[in-house]
Amino acid sequence: MDKLDVAVVGATGLAGQQFLASLVDHPWFRVVRLAASERSAGKTLREALTDRAGAFHWYAGGTLAPALASLPVEDAAAMATDGLACVFSAVESEPAKSLEPLYAREVPVISTASAFRYEPDVPILIPPVNAAHAGLLEVQRRRRGWKGYVTPIPNCTTTGLAIVLAPLAEAFGLRAVAMTSMQACSGAGRSPGVAALDIVDNVIPFISGEEEKVERETAKILGRLAGEAIVPHGARVSCTCTRVPVLEGHTETAFIGLERKASLGDVRAALEGFGRGGPASGLPSAPERWIQFQDDPYRPQPRLDRDAGGGMITTVGRLREDPVLENGVKLVLVSHNTKMGAARGAILVAELLRERGQLG
Amino acid sequence: MDKLDVAVVGATGLAGQQFLASLVDHPWFRVVRLAASERSAGKTLREALTDRAGAFHWYAGGTLAPALASLPVEDAAAMATDGLACVFSAVESEPAKSLEPLYAREVPVISTASAFRYEPDVPILIPPVNAAHAGLLEVQRRRRGWKGYVTPIPNCTTTGLAIVLAPLAEAFGLRAVAMTSMQACSGAGRSPGVAALDIVDNVIPFISGEEEKVERETAKILGRLAGEAIVPHGARVSCTCTRVPVLEGHTETAFIGLERKASLGDVRAALEGFGRGGPASGLPSAPERWIQFQDDPYRPQPRLDRDAGGGMITTVGRLREDPVLENGVKLVLVSHNTKMGAARGAILVAELLRERGQLG
Amino acid sequence: MDKLDVAVVGATGLAGQQFLASLVDHPWFRVVRLAASERSAGKTLREALTDRAGAFHWYAGGTLAPALASLPVEDAAAMATDGLACVFSAVESEPAKSLEPLYAREVPVISTASAFRYEPDVPILIPPVNAAHAGLLEVQRRRRGWKGYVTPIPNCTTTGLAIVLAPLAEAFGLRAVAMTSMQACSGAGRSPGVAALDIVDNVIPFISGEEEKVERETAKILGRLAGEAIVPHGARVSCTCTRVPVLEGHTETAFIGLERKASLGDVRAALEGFGRGGPASGLPSAPERWIQFQDDPYRPQPRLDRDAGGGMITTVGRLREDPVLENGVKLVLVSHNTKMGAARGAILVAELLRERGQLG
Amino acid sequence: MDKLDVAVVGATGLAGQQFLASLVDHPWFRVVRLAASERSAGKTLREALTDRAGAFHWYAGGTLAPALASLPVEDAAAMATDGLACVFSAVESEPAKSLEPLYAREVPVISTASAFRYEPDVPILIPPVNAAHAGLLEVQRRRRGWKGYVTPIPNCTTTGLAIVLAPLAEAFGLRAVAMTSMQACSGAGRSPGVAALDIVDNVIPFISGEEEKVERETAKILGRLAGEAIVPHGARVSCTCTRVPVLEGHTETAFIGLERKASLGDVRAALEGFGRGGPASGLPSAPERWIQFQDDPYRPQPRLDRDAGGGMITTVGRLREDPVLENGVKLVLVSHNTKMGAARGAILVAELLRERGQLG
Repeated sequence: MDKLDVAVVGATGLAGQQFLASLVDHPWFRVVRLAASERSAGKTLREALTDRAGAFHWYAGGTLAPALASLPVEDAAAMATDGLACVFSAVESEPAKSLEPLYAREVPVISTASAFRYEPDVPILIPPVNAAHAGLLEVQRRRRGWKGYVTPIPNCTTTGLAIVLAPLAEAFGLRAVAMTSMQACSGAGRSPGVAALDIVDNVIPFISGEEEKVERETAKILGRLAGEAIVPHGARVSCTCTRVPVLEGHTETAFIGLERKASLGDVRAALEGFGRGGPASGLPSAPERWIQFQDDPYRPQPRLDRDAGGGMITTVGRLREDPVLENGVKLVLVSHNTKMGAARGAILVAELLRERGQLG
Repeated sequence: MDKLDVAVVGATGLAGQQFLASLVDHPWFRVVRLAASERSAGKTLREALTDRAGAFHWYAGGTLAPALASLPVEDAAAMATDGLACVFSAVESEPAKSLEPLYAREVPVISTASAFRYEPDVPILIPPVNAAHAGLLEVQRRRRGWKGYVTPIPNCTTTGLAIVLAPLAEAFGLRAVAMTSMQACSGAGRSPGVAALDIVDNVIPFISGEEEKVERETAKILGRLAGEAIVPHGARVSCTCTRVPVLEGHTETAFIGLERKASLGDVRAALEGFGRGGPASGLPSAPERWIQFQDDPYRPQPRLDRDAGGGMITTVGRLREDPVLENGVKLVLVSHNTKMGAARGAILVAELLRERGQLG
Repeated sequence: MDKLDVAVVGATGLAGQQFLASLVDHPWFRVVRLAASERSAGKTLREALTDRAGAFHWYAGGTLAPALASLPVEDAAAMATDGLACVFSAVESEPAKSLEPLYAREVPVISTASAFRYEPDVPILIPPVNAAHAGLLEVQRRRRGWKGYVTPIPNCTTTGLAIVLAPLAEAFGLRAVAMTSMQACSGAGRSPGVAALDIVDNVIPFISGEEEKVERETAKILGRLAGEAIVPHGARVSCTCTRVPVLEGHTETAFIGLERKASLGDVRAALEGFGRGGPASGLPSAPERWIQFQDDPYRPQPRLDRDAGGGMITTVGRLREDPVLENGVKLVLVSHNTKMGAARGAILVAELLRERGQLG
Repeated sequence: MDKLDVAVVGATGLAGQQFLASLVDHPWFRVVRLAASERSAGKTLREALTDRAGAFHWYAGGTLAPALASLPVEDAAAMATDGLACVFSAVESEPAKSLEPLYAREVPVISTASAFRYEPDVPILIPPVNAAHAGLLEVQRRRRGWKGYVTPIPNCTTTGLAIVLAPLAEAFGLRAVAMTSMQACSGAGRSPGVAALDIVDNVIPFISGEEEKVERETAKILGRLAGEAIVPHGARVSCTCTRVPVLEGHTETAFIGLERKASLGDVRAALEGFGRGGPASGLPSAPERWIQFQDDPYRPQPRLDRDAGGGMITTVGRLREDPVLENGVKLVLVSHNTKMGAARGAILVAELLRERGQLG
């Protein structure tokens, strides 16, 4: 199969760079166009990432592929979409509001921004969890009169939680979740991101807007597509989101109340079996399994577990009974916030849509 | 008033040093005797803390007072108690089992060790919370035929939680708590303590035995002294205890279900008014207030709030309604684990007992 | 004595806040006027430091004094100087170029900015090192026709080094220094400062412009006031400046070549005796001694030694012979970059100038 | 070619685990025997690494290969050497004194321990630097009457420095070096290793014995094999070794005095060309180049550069002229202390010896 041409918008930022790093050697997609703010337009990517002091601002690990480095950066507001199979958007939420519809008139837009997540004709896709919600994109196309569509991935803190809750909701019913996150600094990006003076030897117990996002997105992702709308899941979700001195990998503790009593063995089996043979299993970015279980009581740890399956596996451990919630269990999970929770998760969505015939 | 003579056992360890640092210039107590393991016996404290390379192992901040530095360290198993008003014990739980009764036959022992916490005739005192439980010490004396008694303080993770739950339990009734702790490295002591290789850029989601301690101790502390026993509080308490790269100060998120519906304003008022005019208020180590409330949504932070009131104040913030638990509220607290949660908390207990006529 | 009225310009930034924290209860000076950029003008300081989310941006430790919190913040470009004994300037170097002369026409300006450090009629004062250079300020007044003057303190990395070199230069002559700094994150300020993503689990081996500053300033500070100019010291100074994951306190290793052979005992005696009875010794902000020597081979450490003498003492340790430089010795020093190296060091300069009759 | 059978002694420790991780899929060597202290003997490796709480103490990254996990751990003092091509020794220096000769009577021992480094018939090999010193091993065999020999690698802090100095010594002559190291925590191992309480927000300016090792080993490694002994290089080497809050990767600043004046361009060319086509170039563990040069002034950084070439490349940057030393240059280097500086560096030595016909 010939590779499909794609563009990355917001290519100079941290999330955009992660798209570029993840799309090098992708079997289905080839990056042919880059865009960013007007300030970078007209430079090559290498020039745009090099400052006056000679420092090279590449943060996505490894080395920037030379072919990408010499691509010109276009002005995002003026980028043409002809010939593109899709646009990967890594811009901030505010510019996304105007830029993403611009592209979506012509081609699919897969986005890490939150701008469209809460609109009724927009699904929030996590391929192993709610692939069927992709049907809503056709409603979006029709209603808005677009050739493409906008399909955002969730907030990086939602992703791991929704992946862990999905098999429990399916197997035992889900009634309530009280989640505390210990989030990595990379989740805040780099401009300015988290200051060393704020986080070294410290915990910051608040991330503006984060808790509402996780609560709302989890209900939507676990919801049911009924006709032309998603009926949110009825479980009560309550979060406290904190920042800790960790570079990558969100850790979350969850107290979970189920509809039906389940043994710890049954819960573990449901987690470990999640998504086997499902619609997302064979995709190029799919890991061997979606959830791995750690018997070691000192795991999962973000530094040791974040890179499991190339950052696409959610690791669960410390499964215990919980006396506070009815039919309660409690556990700890680690999810890679800038891989499965960002660029690589968005690429997985593009792969799913391609497989379903909705892209390219 | 003449000062009372006291001894510190386990004086060379981290907790013991904190006793020494906190008792310098104490208005009521004067350290006249030190003890540690046989290995240190016969040296002065200064010699015992200096290794062959010339490094001086003093970890309690400030400078070791010269008068203490030149005191001899005795063998804990052979230390005489004559003339002492009490013994502060900072030994590990295993040696505490045999050492503490040895002293308690003659004099009161106030301990940071867990060895006796769960025995029926032993209270776990937090002066602003359960001063009345001190009555149980007379039962202990009588039953065991000791002139003194053993009175342990709680685990450092329990302390802040119990202080926050106490006014809520009293004002609104307490039904359930789901707590996640993000604990400082100092809680693990120094031998070996937490290794840098384990905790830098990481979270460790398990602390052996900690969750059971917090669950059990909280119920006992909030319980009711009825006759010659404490009836544990009936609230369901469920914990996940983790370690984060923070030096001092435990952060805890709590989802709390109350018996009766309470507005956030009422909850805050109960917290801020806690312990005013109570039996512990005028003690030398008592802070101006027991709980301080932070309006700043980014607080409490362990680095910024741990030292409030000399480490004796528990700081609370992020008070919100919680949809998961009935009559639910959620909040974040920070408590200084090696001050209110350790040596200084134990000294506060000694002060309370002195005031009640049970010591010296 | 009545207190002298002073202003703090750049009052909302990190360095400005440190001036405010250090001037609370100062025996000689009273802050009566605050200024910052136009953006903050017209607000009270409390309002200017509180963002829309309710977060309070106070970073100087302790609590902002209520009397200061309610002072209005003026536009720095329009601040009147009438009635002021001096202005403490904590603005960035670029605005300092225009703002500081504005004030200096009327009153003395003591500044942490580098804008004027390298001008021939401007001394860089460290009171225990080169108090006599203050004479140059009268030259500056006369030449520029100002009633006041601008007197900057050195870069925070220069301060500790110059304090340690001064007694060695005086006692044994100084030929050469090869210095490597391991600098704290607070040296970079907060806007944006050092990003957690850059420094956690890392060292950054470059700080733009820093090495040139230290090399140039050290020679000027150790130089000799001859007539109307300072003759720089002839020692060769070579630096490599790095940033490490430390919050406060710069650590520096120095390989030092002396003019005359000196025993380690003589070197230590020179360091420990430094500044005793000198012109800066009795000033309100002067510590008990300027340099303290640590025998413990594992010291000085920034976390343990930075706050010695309220952050005004430079701590030296690990004194050894060095075989590379002629008459060589090597050592390690720790200096508090935001106390002696910033606001409190500038206040010390104001005290010296007051004592000399050049201020107020 | 059939693979050669090898043993790893000290297999349960951090360094031993790194041997195991590095030898998985090695094209020439196959681990067939493991040994450790008596305490682990008789267990499988998996059992020896699992503690009572169920925690699995594997620290070398990735996953322990199942074939290795089920190997029995033997008592190091009783391990047979028959059939082995060599023994990789990762034990501490004290046990190495008796264990390594035991094995060396029969087979070559390649060791990370310092026990034999300073004996006259023992080379300290870094294959790209001093492959010719391997000739001394035949002298050792003959003098001691052993069939094998002991060949230790240098201290991990020496390795990067020697690699950078070697091409400069060869091209321009080397007169003097003043080096300051900022060493990673992994260099201290794990038992107990560096405590979080000591290093978070801190620098420790002393590592016992380290400076003497680096000074002595560098002279020996850069020396000349003359007849049956190595004549140490005459350059003066002076070090200050510190520990910083970094997990892996030693950073070193060096002020270097050359015999002959060299331009920065010439110095860089010498560094970049180092070892090309030399005897170590084609070995399985050899990276593409031994030294990589970074133009970005903010590099090298340990977190970004330590893993270059699988941890086998030394990264150099910040090359500048130095005014302190005659014909002086200064630079910063990063070297991976637990890869090129430990197990993988030792495996590289084994490869060299195999290639030279001195092993297997």
